[in-house]
Amino acid sequence: MIIAVDAMGGDNAPAEVIRGCVQFLNEFGKSGNIRLKLFGQTEKIQSELNKHTFDKNCIEICEAPEIIEMAEHPTEAIKRKKNSSIVLGLNSLKRGDAGAFVSAGSTGALLTGATVIVGRIKGVERPALGTLLPCKTGSFFLIDSGANVDAKPQYLAQFAKIGSVYSKEVLGIENPRVGIVNIGAESEKGNVLTKEAFPLLESCGVNFVGSAEARDIPLGGFDVVVCDAFVGNIILKYSEGFSKALFSLIKHELTSAFLPSVGALLSKSAFKSLKKKLDPSEVGGAPFLGLKALVVKAHGSSDAKAIKNALRQCNIFIEKNVTAKMAESFAANGGV
Amino acid sequence: MIIAVDAMGGDNAPAEVIRGCVQFLNEFGKSGNIRLKLFGQTEKIQSELNKHTFDKNCIEICEAPEIIEMAEHPTEAIKRKKNSSIVLGLNSLKRGDAGAFVSAGSTGALLTGATVIVGRIKGVERPALGTLLPCKTGSFFLIDSGANVDAKPQYLAQFAKIGSVYSKEVLGIENPRVGIVNIGAESEKGNVLTKEAFPLLESCGVNFVGSAEARDIPLGGFDVVVCDAFVGNIILKYSEGFSKALFSLIKHELTSAFLPSVGALLSKSAFKSLKKKLDPSEVGGAPFLGLKALVVKAHGSSDAKAIKNALRQCNIFIEKNVTAKMAESFAANGGV
Repeated sequence: MIIAVDAMGGDNAPAEVIRGCVQFLNEFGKSGNIRLKLFGQTEKIQSELNKHTFDKNCIEICEAPEIIEMAEHPTEAIKRKKNSSIVLGLNSLKRGDAGAFVSAGSTGALLTGATVIVGRIKGVERPALGTLLPCKTGSFFLIDSGANVDAKPQYLAQFAKIGSVYSKEVLGIENPRVGIVNIGAESEKGNVLTKEAFPLLESCGVNFVGSAEARDIPLGGFDVVVCDAFVGNIILKYSEGFSKALFSLIKHELTSAFLPSVGALLSKSAFKSLKKKLDPSEVGGAPFLGLKALVVKAHGSSDAKAIKNALRQCNIFIEKNVTAKMAESFAANGGV
Repeated sequence: MIIAVDAMGGDNAPAEVIRGCVQFLNEFGKSGNIRLKLFGQTEKIQSELNKHTFDKNCIEICEAPEIIEMAEHPTEAIKRKKNSSIVLGLNSLKRGDAGAFVSAGSTGALLTGATVIVGRIKGVERPALGTLLPCKTGSFFLIDSGANVDAKPQYLAQFAKIGSVYSKEVLGIENPRVGIVNIGAESEKGNVLTKEAFPLLESCGVNFVGSAEARDIPLGGFDVVVCDAFVGNIILKYSEGFSKALFSLIKHELTSAFLPSVGALLSKSAFKSLKKKLDPSEVGGAPFLGLKALVVKAHGSSDAKAIKNALRQCNIFIEKNVTAKMAESFAANGGV
C-alpha cells in the first residue's frame, strides 16, 4: 500500500506534515506494509526526517522543486508548475504508483488538478468534497462541502451515491441514511435545485430518508447530508464561527460573576473534552470523492495529528477498495 | 397610531396573543395614543380580554370568523378564506386603517397574502423577511430569511437597501455595514448569484463592506447580511439546531463527572443569562419588508412577551415613518 503526500503544503509544512507521516507509520505501518512517497524539496524533507526515528524502507522522497502558493489561480498554477508537489503527487496517482494523495496546500489547485489529472469514475459528472461534522449523536458526512458551488440536480444524487459508499466502507455505517439539506420537511418545499433533486434521490439506490431541515441536522438522524458546495460551505463555516462565538459568550458570562467563575474552574475538564469532540483535526481532512483514486484535502493549518488522521483515512480507503465499490455502485444503477 | 393583530394565529392563540397585546398597551400605550385592532372570533377574543385590565378605548375587536390553518396551501387559503383573520387584517392595512399587522399564523399565507393585498413599494420586486440574529458583538439583521428561495442578483441589492433603512430607523444603527453571505472574501469567490450581485451591491447606495464569510458572521462585523431565502433559512435554522445540540453536549459533559457538575450548579445563572441573550422571543418576530405597510411574522410558538416585542417593533416602525423612508431610498437611487 502506497500513499503519496504533499510535504510542502499547508501553514506548518514541511515540519508538521513529516511529523504526522512518521507518527502514522509508527502507529499503523509496523509490519512494513505501508509506504509513503513524500513530494517536495528533497533537502528540506530530509532535514526534517533526520529529526525522527522510523523504518527508512517505508518513506521515499520524490523531488518536487516547485510549490503552488495559496494566492495563485488554480488552473493556471496547475498548468504552469508541472514540477510542483501537487502536480507530481497527482501524476503518481494517475500512474497507479500510489493509491491516495494527501495535501494541505491550495484547495483550488488540488481539486482542479485532481479532476484534470486523476480523472473521474464513470458516471460521476463532478467529484465532491466531503467533510465529517460533529452532531449531537456523533457525526454526519456533509457532501459537497467545497467543490461545486453551482450544482445541477443530478450532481446531488451522485453525491448521495458516492457519500453512501464512503460512509459504509470508511466510516463503517451499515445502511447510511441520506438526507438533502432543505428548508422544510416535505418534498414540495425547497428551491428549484432541491425540488428537482428530490425524485432523483428517491430512485438512485441509496437509503434516502428525505429532507434534512437545517434545524435538525445538528441534532442527528442523518449519516450523509447532500447539498451544493455553496450551502455546504455555509454549514461548515457557520458552525465553526458559531461555536467559536458561543464559547466566547459562555466564557464571558462565566467570568462576569464570582460563583459562575468558580463553577467555570470546576467545569474546565468538561469543556476541554467537549472542544476535543468538536476538533476538526480529529478527523484529519476532507476526502475529494468520485475520482479514480482518493485525494484528501487536509486543512491548511493541519498539525501532525491531522496529517496522521488523514493518512489513516487513506489507509482504510485503499484497504477496503472503495474506488472499485463506488464504480460498481454507478455501474449497478446505470448512472443518475 | 393603529396596529392590526391576528388574534387567532399561532399555537398559543388567542390567549397569549391577547395577553401580549394588553402588556404592550399597558407598557407603551399609557397616553392612549396607540390603538389595537384584534382580528378574529369576537366571542373568544372577548372572553380572553375579560381576564385583563386595560384602557378599553384602545382595543377594538374586528370579527373574522375564519381561520387559515398551518397545513393549508397559502395561495388557495388566501383566495378561499376572505373572512379569515389574516385576509381581513391585511385588508385593513391596504385601506390604511392600520399602519402595521402582526400575525403568528401560517407563514406562507401571511407572506403571499401580504404581497398580493398590501402591495410593494415602487422599485421593490420582491419583499423579504428579515430576522435579527445574535452574534458575539450583539446582533445582525439577516435578510432574506424566509421569502424568496430562488433569488435574482438585483433582489439581493434591493434587500440590502430595505435592510439598511430598517437597521438605521428601527434598530438605531447609524451607517449599517452590509455584507453578502459568501464562501470567500474576494468578489470573484462565490456562486453565480453572489458574483452577479456583488457589483450591484457596490453601486446601490448602501454601506456595502463586501463578502460576509459564514465563519465570520457569528463573530460580528456586519449589521445587515443579505442572501437568498434558502441560504438565509439554513443560517437561521442551523444556528438554532446547533446551539440546541451544543447546550445538550455541554450539559452531558458537565454532568458526567463530579467536579464539573458542581461547577455547572455554580454556573447556572450564567447559562440562564446566555440563553436569554439567544432567545428569539426577545426580538418578537420577523418583519416582512418592502411592502407599503409593515407586516410582522411572529413565531408560531410566540408567547405574550414575543407578541409584545413584535408590537413594539411596529410601534417604532410607524413612528419613524419607515415605509416612506424606504420608498425615498428607492426613488433616490432610481431602483436597482
